[in-house]
Amino acid sequence: MEQNFTIQSIGRVRCERTEPIDDNWDAFPSTIELDRARFGHEALLGLESFSHVEVLYVFDQVRDEEITATARHPRGRTDWPKIGIFAQRGKGRPNRIGATICTVVSVEGTELRVRGLDAIDGTPVIDIKPVMSGFQPRGPFKEPDWAWEIMQGYWVTPG
Amino acid sequence: MEQNFTIQSIGRVRCERTEPIDDNWDAFPSTIELDRARFGHEALLGLESFSHVEVLYVFDQVRDEEITATARHPRGRTDWPKIGIFAQRGKGRPNRIGATICTVVSVEGTELRVRGLDAIDGTPVIDIKPVMSGFQPRGPFKEPDWAWEIMQGYWVTPG
Repeated sequence: MEQNFTIQSIGRVRCERTEPIDDNWDAFPSTIELDRARFGHEALLGLESFSHVEVLYVFDQVRDEEITATARHPRGRTDWPKIGIFAQRGKGRPNRIGATICTVVSVEGTELRVRGLDAIDGTPVIDIKPVMSGFQPRGPFKEPDWAWEIMQGYWVTPG
Repeated sequence: MEQNFTIQSIGRVRCERTEPIDDNWDAFPSTIELDRARFGHEALLGLESFSHVEVLYVFDQVRDEEITATARHPRGRTDWPKIGIFAQRGKGRPNRIGATICTVVSVEGTELRVRGLDAIDGTPVIDIKPVMSGFQPRGPFKEPDWAWEIMQGYWVTPG
């Protein structure tokens, strides 16, 4: 039933943050450097006409024993409910893939500068996709309280 | 520089559409069946309190020779500009990963029913993430004209 795929990094994150801290990610602008052995500037052609990109990357510092296949309290907070790993966005997940929407700052050759990428220096990037209005959530939106609370301070430290 | 990762499917898409057609995806409700050898219902616990999920999957029917590493006209339309593969969402991309936000219809054990998943029957799923308001695009939004035009008819056929 299960099927394996080999994924190759297409580039790497360069930023000042070297430790995985849970909050205040907007403080650190990031550069995604494409692997120049495989990609030229054409691969990013036209990306500057989008305000936002989605970056797929690998949480490569997460160890096997940190991976959850069942449910757990987000961030270990027992005041929040136990939540299935596919109903939360924690990094200790099967396949270790992160997906984050960032603001495009600039495109320079094979380098893409962004703001709001929650990945530390050296993180392998496996895809970049433009954010299109047609791929945004459609219809009524809802989320549980914990999902709202967990994001307070995630991008910008309050106060 | 480049780094390889092995990804395992966590489940599979079941739906009526068996051919990759570009439009009218909302006509086909889909079920994501988790691999029951590895996952129980706990993996989806709490997902029904979200209206939307992001599904990461592999375009496993795309052949090597269909992969672009440079730029091309989206859908081959020469009336649209040439666009870098990382500035478009076409399936012939390095690593063949698709990422789509769908509406949650229901969660039943290890089965997740969704609407608006643009993946054909049998497609391997590699991750499921809840859509949180805090991970939506922040700040002013822009996209080029072709990105808006390409989505007309993608979910629902006009007229």
